[in-house]
Amino acid sequence: MRMLLTLSLAAAMGALVQAQATDGSKPATSNLPGAEYPRIHADSRVTFRISAPSAQKVQVVPGGNDNGLGQGPFDMQRDDKGVWTVTVGPVVPGFHYYWLQVDGFACNDPATQTYFGWNKECSGIEVTDKTLDFYDVKDVPHGEVRARWYYSKVTRMWRRAMVYTPPDYDRDARTRYPVLYLQHGAGENERGWTSQGRANFILDNLIAEKKAQPMILVMENGMVAPKAGENSLPAKSGAAPRRNEAFRDMVISDLIPMIDATYRTIPDPAHRAVAGLSMGAGQAMQVGFANLDKFGYIGCFSGGGAARSDFSTSEPKPLLVWMGAGTAESSRVTSAKATVEAMSKAGIPAVWFEAPGTSHEWQTWRKCLYDFTPRLFQK
Amino acid sequence: MRMLLTLSLAAAMGALVQAQATDGSKPATSNLPGAEYPRIHADSRVTFRISAPSAQKVQVVPGGNDNGLGQGPFDMQRDDKGVWTVTVGPVVPGFHYYWLQVDGFACNDPATQTYFGWNKECSGIEVTDKTLDFYDVKDVPHGEVRARWYYSKVTRMWRRAMVYTPPDYDRDARTRYPVLYLQHGAGENERGWTSQGRANFILDNLIAEKKAQPMILVMENGMVAPKAGENSLPAKSGAAPRRNEAFRDMVISDLIPMIDATYRTIPDPAHRAVAGLSMGAGQAMQVGFANLDKFGYIGCFSGGGAARSDFSTSEPKPLLVWMGAGTAESSRVTSAKATVEAMSKAGIPAVWFEAPGTSHEWQTWRKCLYDFTPRLFQK
Repeated sequence: MRMLLTLSLAAAMGALVQAQATDGSKPATSNLPGAEYPRIHADSRVTFRISAPSAQKVQVVPGGNDNGLGQGPFDMQRDDKGVWTVTVGPVVPGFHYYWLQVDGFACNDPATQTYFGWNKECSGIEVTDKTLDFYDVKDVPHGEVRARWYYSKVTRMWRRAMVYTPPDYDRDARTRYPVLYLQHGAGENERGWTSQGRANFILDNLIAEKKAQPMILVMENGMVAPKAGENSLPAKSGAAPRRNEAFRDMVISDLIPMIDATYRTIPDPAHRAVAGLSMGAGQAMQVGFANLDKFGYIGCFSGGGAARSDFSTSEPKPLLVWMGAGTAESSRVTSAKATVEAMSKAGIPAVWFEAPGTSHEWQTWRKCLYDFTPRLFQK
Repeated sequence: MRMLLTLSLAAAMGALVQAQATDGSKPATSNLPGAEYPRIHADSRVTFRISAPSAQKVQVVPGGNDNGLGQGPFDMQRDDKGVWTVTVGPVVPGFHYYWLQVDGFACNDPATQTYFGWNKECSGIEVTDKTLDFYDVKDVPHGEVRARWYYSKVTRMWRRAMVYTPPDYDRDARTRYPVLYLQHGAGENERGWTSQGRANFILDNLIAEKKAQPMILVMENGMVAPKAGENSLPAKSGAAPRRNEAFRDMVISDLIPMIDATYRTIPDPAHRAVAGLSMGAGQAMQVGFANLDKFGYIGCFSGGGAARSDFSTSEPKPLLVWMGAGTAESSRVTSAKATVEAMSKAGIPAVWFEAPGTSHEWQTWRKCLYDFTPRLFQK
């Protein structure tokens, strides 16, 4: 029964495939195995195609107005068999969230993998950047990405941290490693940095080239908010989710002690960093500056520096604060640069980085990670 | 921008939430954080609800005709605000694939997590079985689930194996462990056994109770077929996907050598098992019986025994062949029992198991794993 139905589905997908292009375009690497659409053209245009014979209107919706796919929604055109198609772009290379709108109903493209973003399992497309290969899977030693369950007293629930251990972690049981706590953005989760961000491949490649110290990455879910049901978080102040406060408490009280007890870390601030993107950038700034006895390095990717603007020459200083953003998210560039200048005036070692041409997207944050991690644990 | 749009999405979800039930029903544990529907009632009925004001027809479609949700598709009823609702069941407890059909277009329920099944990212619902807790997250030592990348010469691609290492694997660098190679069914992938099957929690609990030997689980993608693009597999015989043949070659030539070189295994047949469900059960029978110098134990979950029916008293024998199915998938029960009888007559140690009340679904396979693994590596 199951086999037969599965084959029927394959046949249905085959019907889509028949119309495939012969123009040199290729299926996106983010497609499901065997899915011919979406396809990426040589000039970075993207063609989306789905079959929906009974639908009245179908659109492709980029995830946000500054998404590298362009300003949507994009109306798809129906052919006489009910197959809907639209070609967009040329688009900005990198990873882009998107979804479909079928008669007004927002849903995934059935031909692509899903990625947790926008508070849901969301379609995504990887548009190849032919000028970059630092996040590709290469023939180098690979680390592992481990799912580690632990009980958090702060959130009163079993939680899953994702932990990248560098290549050869298991070969020598005496070697100890520095740790980077690395956070995703609003609406994402602990899988974002490896799934969308390819952080493990970025580190594998940097370590193989001896550009970065072998290090452990720890990725947790920063959307720490009151939950429905028995896991709800006690509110300390009013009814609003106290996300960043709860995140900070969880990291300090539960996560760091568990990581240091479980993995061969070097448990001092010179070998512990915290970084994040967007919402996670604010969380990294907050938890980092409030705990300089624990964190020597702070990374702020597309954060705008909103968390702090006042710095004095007399306050304790981290070893490095790194801030970066994409040039296409200009308001964040302006505010973050001002923060970097304020820190520099106060004598705080601060670095500024711009990712050329990209916006508030994973391609910016991949580039941030690639510039940030080689600067860590050098002092 | 991103933050604002995310909040708008949260507000939109809030509109759905307003209508939540006050009848003792609870959101399914498979829901996205904060999603109030689908809800499970005390009597195991399930209420699905989505907002689709512009749609003409919305249905809930169970994944297959023997799915524990019942015979679908189920028509949802529209209210005057365009919110669609249907209550089904009482349903069979366990994990069930399903999807929506919105004006004929098959898509996910945006309120639930997705699980790779039916050759796509598929909605799924976990219906609590109040009589069972063997697959729950409990306060016991937890193993890790590790993503391990490796290059396969057979499939000519970088592949990802999922590897469960038992609790305390990293504590004592001298302890070595037996290994169970564990395969999913057709249309699923290497994440199925931990995501849908909760294999890691099942082993954590069995090991904590000293009912099973601490062991390593290795889960790979058994949908080994010619792929589009540069990773296509050379066809040996005709144009059809040679899935099981390629799987067997990959396991023997690439996977086992990599696992034995990377993890502290006991690399002999008395400490190596292979098992799978449905399509994976056939693969386990094939690779197991063809390589008795490598595998001492073979597990066949809902496989029907189609892979073999002829057994002779003179042939080499595994230490144990374990076969099981759910009582609600009666044709598989009949054929598998016949295979067990044929093996027993030939002097092959064979065990038969029935999961009461469940069909060709993950609840059957969780129960299979729970009965199978305590019998491993005892000789």
